[in-house]
Amino acid sequence: AARGARKMEDYGRFLVLLVSALLVGFVSVVFSLVWVFHYREGLSWDGSSGEFNWHPVLTITGFVFIQGIAIIVYRLPWTWKCSKLLMKFIHAGLNTIAMILAIVAMVAVFDFHNAKNIPNMYSLHSWIGLAAVIFYALQLFLGFAVFLLPFAPVPLRAALMPIHVYSGLTIFATVIATALMGITEKLIFSLKSPAYSAFPPEATFVNCLGLLLIMFGALVLWMASRAHWKRPPEENAKVLLPVGGTSEDTEAESTMTDGNNADKSDLRINSEAARKQNLKLDEAGQRSTM
Amino acid sequence: AARGARKMEDYGRFLVLLVSALLVGFVSVVFSLVWVFHYREGLSWDGSSGEFNWHPVLTITGFVFIQGIAIIVYRLPWTWKCSKLLMKFIHAGLNTIAMILAIVAMVAVFDFHNAKNIPNMYSLHSWIGLAAVIFYALQLFLGFAVFLLPFAPVPLRAALMPIHVYSGLTIFATVIATALMGITEKLIFSLKSPAYSAFPPEATFVNCLGLLLIMFGALVLWMASRAHWKRPPEENAKVLLPVGGTSEDTEAESTMTDGNNADKSDLRINSEAARKQNLKLDEAGQRSTM
Repeated sequence: AARGARKMEDYGRFLVLLVSALLVGFVSVVFSLVWVFHYREGLSWDGSSGEFNWHPVLTITGFVFIQGIAIIVYRLPWTWKCSKLLMKFIHAGLNTIAMILAIVAMVAVFDFHNAKNIPNMYSLHSWIGLAAVIFYALQLFLGFAVFLLPFAPVPLRAALMPIHVYSGLTIFATVIATALMGITEKLIFSLKSPAYSAFPPEATFVNCLGLLLIMFGALVLWMASRAHWKRPPEENAKVLLPVGGTSEDTEAESTMTDGNNADKSDLRINSEAARKQNLKLDEAGQRSTM
Repeated sequence: AARGARKMEDYGRFLVLLVSALLVGFVSVVFSLVWVFHYREGLSWDGSSGEFNWHPVLTITGFVFIQGIAIIVYRLPWTWKCSKLLMKFIHAGLNTIAMILAIVAMVAVFDFHNAKNIPNMYSLHSWIGLAAVIFYALQLFLGFAVFLLPFAPVPLRAALMPIHVYSGLTIFATVIATALMGITEKLIFSLKSPAYSAFPPEATFVNCLGLLLIMFGALVLWMASRAHWKRPPEENAKVLLPVGGTSEDTEAESTMTDGNNADKSDLRINSEAARKQNLKLDEAGQRSTM
């Protein structure tokens, strides 16, 4: 009973963090809209500042908020009864949406720059932002090829999963850093009288947006890196294994650096009895290290 | 023998990453010096731009490079024969040096701003940078009180360690993001004819410094988050436990979310035979989750 109570307490803690992350992320998107509609020229697609404004709105909505949700989607306990394949589709789908929005956001800036004869790709923000989009596309492509398509052998999945998780979190953190650089640039360039340094209300408001983005990132990273909040291993994993996969047991396991025994004190709300510890291979292939 | 070969290969991989991180970090410090001496006004302490220039040099040296080394210092396999207490002193000492340099770097900017009548604390860079210094000081103080002084009970250490590790890595990532914002601000403000957007050599050079800082951060985060590169548990840990500590066994272990079994396939170069798996309490109290 005491053990059950501790599990519920842990579940409650997870929910508080999830609601906080969703709230902070949602408020960030609202802030980006208030910024462009209340303080700036709104949204348009005509080479004017209104076209530029799609850039912060779409990057914050897609590249920050939706990417953040895609990262923690496996952690939601009520999805643990859904098939792993469905969750992979949701994870890949959210990341695809985020990438499309990031690309449209980039096109908006290039279009705006070209219309106004402003050079492209000179700032550190643009260098790191473009690198982040390229790595994100690569990550999506490799993730699709290795973890979603059924061709990759289990040892390869096991070897690449820690790298996939690490790259995902590093790209996510880099995207937030890039957004903060973008905010800095935009406030310096667009606040002239009064200047950024004269503390106009827009400066304070958008600085707060920057703080919200960091809070969102910190919440997502905390939720993603707690091993005991991970999705438990799949029951039907053995069925999905490629022929001969079981002979690779040791190899697949030795690439895991992560605590299987952490699951023993886990949030096991659903079908606890059905989950056995004999599915190590699936665990090695599907689960991660951070 | 095959197992030994795999361990040596893993050790080699660790060394390659370590040397890369040290090299990238060192080159970043050199770049900051070339920036201020070759492209800017050098270093001085007289309210001029030369005083401002201490800010990038000291933040990159202390708050980025030294903090990064402090994070991975427990990972160095040749230190595993040193006492844990000595390593804690080195970890705390490096972080203290980093904090002092960060504070001097901050004083340099306030002094420069005041001499030039430039407002303080208006930019997102300054907000997040000050927050990072405050959280860093808090982290150092709490780390000292809980993990270095002998008073904190083991369950408290076990409960706080994952938070300590997470906060440390999050602060480190935030510091790098803040440095990137600072580079953005400084290049926009100081490059006038030609402007930042006209691609002068200084712009390209300092953008590259920004890329180096991200690479350094990415290398440190990778090394810090590989569970199998962690320092193995201490042999003499039982001796250091407070009286009654053993009665807390279950509690201390249940707060661990991290893989003890990962150690089985570890980099155990030194005194393998001496390390037993019966030191779970020490592990829970001293080791971390990411």
